[in-house]
Amino acid sequence: MSRLWSPVVRTLTPYVPGEQPTNRDVIKLNTNENPYGPSPKALAAIRAEATDGLRRYPDPNATALKAALAERHAISPNQVFVGNGSDEVLAHIFHGLLKHDDPILFPDIAYSFYPVYCGLYDVLYTTLPLNDEFKIQLEDYSRPNGGIIFANPNAPTGRGLGLASIEALLERNSDSVVVIDEAYIAFGGQSAVGLIDRFDNLVIVQTLSKSHALAGLRVGFAFGNPTLIEALERVKNSFNSYPLDRVAIAGAVASIQDTDYFDSTLQRVIETRERLVAELKHLDFDVLPSQANFLFVTHQHHAAVKLLHTLRDRAILVRHFDHVRTSEYLRITIGTDVEVDALLKALKEILG
Amino acid sequence: MSRLWSPVVRTLTPYVPGEQPTNRDVIKLNTNENPYGPSPKALAAIRAEATDGLRRYPDPNATALKAALAERHAISPNQVFVGNGSDEVLAHIFHGLLKHDDPILFPDIAYSFYPVYCGLYDVLYTTLPLNDEFKIQLEDYSRPNGGIIFANPNAPTGRGLGLASIEALLERNSDSVVVIDEAYIAFGGQSAVGLIDRFDNLVIVQTLSKSHALAGLRVGFAFGNPTLIEALERVKNSFNSYPLDRVAIAGAVASIQDTDYFDSTLQRVIETRERLVAELKHLDFDVLPSQANFLFVTHQHHAAVKLLHTLRDRAILVRHFDHVRTSEYLRITIGTDVEVDALLKALKEILG
Repeated sequence: MSRLWSPVVRTLTPYVPGEQPTNRDVIKLNTNENPYGPSPKALAAIRAEATDGLRRYPDPNATALKAALAERHAISPNQVFVGNGSDEVLAHIFHGLLKHDDPILFPDIAYSFYPVYCGLYDVLYTTLPLNDEFKIQLEDYSRPNGGIIFANPNAPTGRGLGLASIEALLERNSDSVVVIDEAYIAFGGQSAVGLIDRFDNLVIVQTLSKSHALAGLRVGFAFGNPTLIEALERVKNSFNSYPLDRVAIAGAVASIQDTDYFDSTLQRVIETRERLVAELKHLDFDVLPSQANFLFVTHQHHAAVKLLHTLRDRAILVRHFDHVRTSEYLRITIGTDVEVDALLKALKEILG
Repeated sequence: MSRLWSPVVRTLTPYVPGEQPTNRDVIKLNTNENPYGPSPKALAAIRAEATDGLRRYPDPNATALKAALAERHAISPNQVFVGNGSDEVLAHIFHGLLKHDDPILFPDIAYSFYPVYCGLYDVLYTTLPLNDEFKIQLEDYSRPNGGIIFANPNAPTGRGLGLASIEALLERNSDSVVVIDEAYIAFGGQSAVGLIDRFDNLVIVQTLSKSHALAGLRVGFAFGNPTLIEALERVKNSFNSYPLDRVAIAGAVASIQDTDYFDSTLQRVIETRERLVAELKHLDFDVLPSQANFLFVTHQHHAAVKLLHTLRDRAILVRHFDHVRTSEYLRITIGTDVEVDALLKALKEILG
């Protein structure tokens, strides 16, 4: 605390990301990273950028990346916004599209960065409870609001929503921005990107961190009506002209264009997930149905925090969220088959 | 304009960066990039990061980069903040340290992003005129203020301030944050980094974009008292946990550690600058004394805008700032000797 801080700094409760251990022998199932590496074509594109050309500023508009995304999703480049990870994209959305007189709405169990952004930009919000099965109840969102945001599939639950209920929500809220955070959509959910031409109030957020195995490169994006994208560009161009460096742009373009690699690694993650679901149920875990690259689980007889620490003692990291409704749950990222086997072996020993 | 925009978006006047042409045959002296490439060791470090490791998030604290900067400047890592280019660092400074009841102060001729940040975060400001020789008059800054920011050397003038006048300013303003934007300090100015232990209200901002020839990698930083750095960390961790990607961190560390390369390329830029100053004076330009990697010049007989366009027709880009006091000036980045010779040849032909 200091007399020199802006008053807003005193009120902030910053986000705390999952641990990034420097010990490489840890089995790291705590931050939803992809167990398979990025596309070899992306790695080649990154290496090819390591030239004297780095003395030049990047393209402030990241035109090549917007073009690659537009082509991939059969939309127009002016429906695409890009940023330094989806966290930066979300920050600009909270600042540029969700700050109104009415509170915004999001689930009580959601990406825990949402209330942090509200603190940073003084955005009013109301949380609406998931039901007892941890399902988002979209019918609850029919009240005056300054915007709506939720993840689909939701984090940390992994549960997905169908497009029909999202369409109904968009129709009921035509005067609010509805943001769907699709960080995990590629692992089995139904993307709403196809709806942006019909709904001028819809914003979709995606990232290369999970499905494209590029968490280390920091590239995220938003899709929506050009007027909404323009608001984000205005905020971005009042914040940082060049949020994506030359290396990130080149790696992202190559990764997006390598659809064969993308499809094959996704399929492997999904297969491992389905196997892990079955095995955990055998071990008396309750497992929420997941459309993501993680599972949200609770054990019928063993306390979550105790399991968290016991696994940690065996160099296996999973994630725990210390809130009333989630305190008995663990979130487990889908690793390689070898990592998942090591987790299952450890759990069998721990649970006896 | 849209009913769905946050009200703040309607009032923004975004920053407009210098043009980044895609045509590689252009002689680009418009955005103060370094004419020599980055350290070969930085390029090697970037290539070495192009591995499966990119599936992992970066270190959110960029510990290795803070350590390298702390060692280079003989300060402590908790006196270092890092971000995605100095533009992002400046944005967090405006939000976290310069938003108070009193207006902040900066020169009327300054980095044109400063008023843009004020618009984004609703920071009040007053500009104070440079004198007729384009010198900052620090004695004018003795009035109630919410903070002070200026570049040293100043942009786009290139004029530097000595440490004695900066110390006096810091003493007179002990209850305000004083931010010195040292983007160009390495080209001949006196850095105030050595003052951060004595003045708890001082923040220094630097970047790898110019002196380290890494504009394409987007790495900037701030130095200051740990309490001020903590404010910036709180804002950053409420905005984006991982603003620096793994590749940028690795390249930045290697670049900072390669001091021999740094010193030798700086020396070449300075030598070319001094030669260009002399030659331009021969051609009847008035040239402000520059401690930066650019010159701010006006011709005694030829209009700046006309020269700008005539040079552009010959594929030579320089920068013009369309404000009352600078409309007759051009800012010329120091290029290679070959580029500078081409500029001089063109000017001789144009000026007859």
